[in-house]
Amino acid sequence: MKKYQVVGIGNAMVDVLAHADDTFLAEAGVQKGIMQLIDMDRGVELYGRIGPAKEISGGSAANTIAGIALLGGRTAYVGKVKDDQLGAIFAHDLRAQGADYATPLAPKDAPQETGRCIVLVTPDGERSMNTYLGVTEFLSPSDIVEDQMAAAEWIYLEGYRFDGPESHEAFAKAIAACKGAGGRVSLTLSDPFCVERHRDAFRRMIRDDVDLLFANRAEILSMYQTDDLEKALAQAAAEVELVACTESEKGAHILSGGQRWHVPAVPTDIVDATGAGDLFAAGFLWGLTNGHDLPVCGRMGCIAASEVISHIGARPEADLHSLFVQHGVL
Amino acid sequence: MKKYQVVGIGNAMVDVLAHADDTFLAEAGVQKGIMQLIDMDRGVELYGRIGPAKEISGGSAANTIAGIALLGGRTAYVGKVKDDQLGAIFAHDLRAQGADYATPLAPKDAPQETGRCIVLVTPDGERSMNTYLGVTEFLSPSDIVEDQMAAAEWIYLEGYRFDGPESHEAFAKAIAACKGAGGRVSLTLSDPFCVERHRDAFRRMIRDDVDLLFANRAEILSMYQTDDLEKALAQAAAEVELVACTESEKGAHILSGGQRWHVPAVPTDIVDATGAGDLFAAGFLWGLTNGHDLPVCGRMGCIAASEVISHIGARPEADLHSLFVQHGVL
Repeated sequence: MKKYQVVGIGNAMVDVLAHADDTFLAEAGVQKGIMQLIDMDRGVELYGRIGPAKEISGGSAANTIAGIALLGGRTAYVGKVKDDQLGAIFAHDLRAQGADYATPLAPKDAPQETGRCIVLVTPDGERSMNTYLGVTEFLSPSDIVEDQMAAAEWIYLEGYRFDGPESHEAFAKAIAACKGAGGRVSLTLSDPFCVERHRDAFRRMIRDDVDLLFANRAEILSMYQTDDLEKALAQAAAEVELVACTESEKGAHILSGGQRWHVPAVPTDIVDATGAGDLFAAGFLWGLTNGHDLPVCGRMGCIAASEVISHIGARPEADLHSLFVQHGVL
Repeated sequence: MKKYQVVGIGNAMVDVLAHADDTFLAEAGVQKGIMQLIDMDRGVELYGRIGPAKEISGGSAANTIAGIALLGGRTAYVGKVKDDQLGAIFAHDLRAQGADYATPLAPKDAPQETGRCIVLVTPDGERSMNTYLGVTEFLSPSDIVEDQMAAAEWIYLEGYRFDGPESHEAFAKAIAACKGAGGRVSLTLSDPFCVERHRDAFRRMIRDDVDLLFANRAEILSMYQTDDLEKALAQAAAEVELVACTESEKGAHILSGGQRWHVPAVPTDIVDATGAGDLFAAGFLWGLTNGHDLPVCGRMGCIAASEVISHIGARPEADLHSLFVQHGVL
């Protein structure tokens, strides 16, 4: 048995969550429903305009790893924060959830701060994310510990992490160490505009290295530059052994070895959509690494996603294991 | 018309909110249901033991001022944070709510950090508070701007703020400036053990300067060293023009000029009791400074308190004005 079921690599973030309406988004120049990268000046300006906020640890892959840890999975995370107060919050919350986390801190005198994401939640539950990457942009190959990657059944790579100077090298090092020890590689496309920025690099990685691809509808359409979901799914399935594509309230599509399953979404009142995809991946990967059938893994993903969108914040709050039992998948 | 209806002075804090059970409290040596002062070492040790947390601006008087600001009241706050990330969060949230806040920051090289309160919420909704005061302990008379105190119809003094070397002087300066300009003084006793620590100083202030005393049952019993609420209320009413004493689910007692009113609590499911007293004071003071009758002010206090205990965090989230309308007090 490998030490870890899943080791995630991504952008380490503290989320700054506030409510806003569509008028505010328009006036503040925030694009709705997507992730937009901002610099520190814009971060300060935008933060000065938003209402009272809550600070909750986030980061896409970190949310996934937190979910797997909450489920009792053996898991670890790699992502960079600084030796500052937000960095301490991020590290505490992940470890307190039961995940291993040992990425070296950027020093106190680093010019950037710990990354943060100003998440504006509109009354429809949609989230518009404004990400200041800070030190997390500078995750380097030296932060990747090969022994840890070799100890993982799966590594889970966050597409957002492609936004950084040394990220491709860091991912390549992680993939080589993991695959060299018989492990497998999963990737989430993260965001349609992230796919736009890095389509060629994503595509090479998908073809050459990825065993499991996570995407939502917009991301997979962007990846394969089509408006036709069926075409995009077919292309992905031809390139990757296992594809899990979410489609919001329409549930998820699982494709593998010429077979295909549709899993319905779990209805809930959407309070804050932040983390839906992250927790889908958590439920799916936990199921997969515990030997469950693919449609059951998909159900677990949908249940975990429905929990996280029922409250503010992208980390699960309810006991996911009990929810799996309640829904009859355990 | 004075510039401010209420100016609050207190300990500026960011709350670190986590769930815990009674077993954890016992093992970690946390006394249930009260505020205990801790040093930085204990703060670090305790933080390392608690589960994932949420960071939300707090501070007793700051919660009150945030509530008054949310209601549209003209209000300001005085309390010290540092030029660090938690300090920035505290300042942002208060200003974003509509309160004036201009206390000079402690500099980056100050040996303490911004104060924080590790709030452990048990399944019964009770909160056990572990307060690292940090720089907020060092609020000094020079941080009190006399013109601002003179511009206040009421100042609102937080009992907790007595825990600090120059606090008595700072309060004396605020009181003199406020009263000299025809303003009035309210005080909250904050906590029974805080009353233990500072009974004589509290008592002098109550007799000499206080026009409105806020307390809960445990605090007023501690103040007057009796087990008999009626005796304590009678003593307080003999010393102060207006007394507002809360008694949890039994509501609140208002005493003034030989008259007395009882106001029922507003039933709600208690998720997190943090901030109940703070928001009672917010509703009461907003009502009072908008010319409402005392029993109506008490009702407003109880409605605001019931809102804040229905969710995690000590700052109000719902539109209190609409709640007042719904409950027929506006």
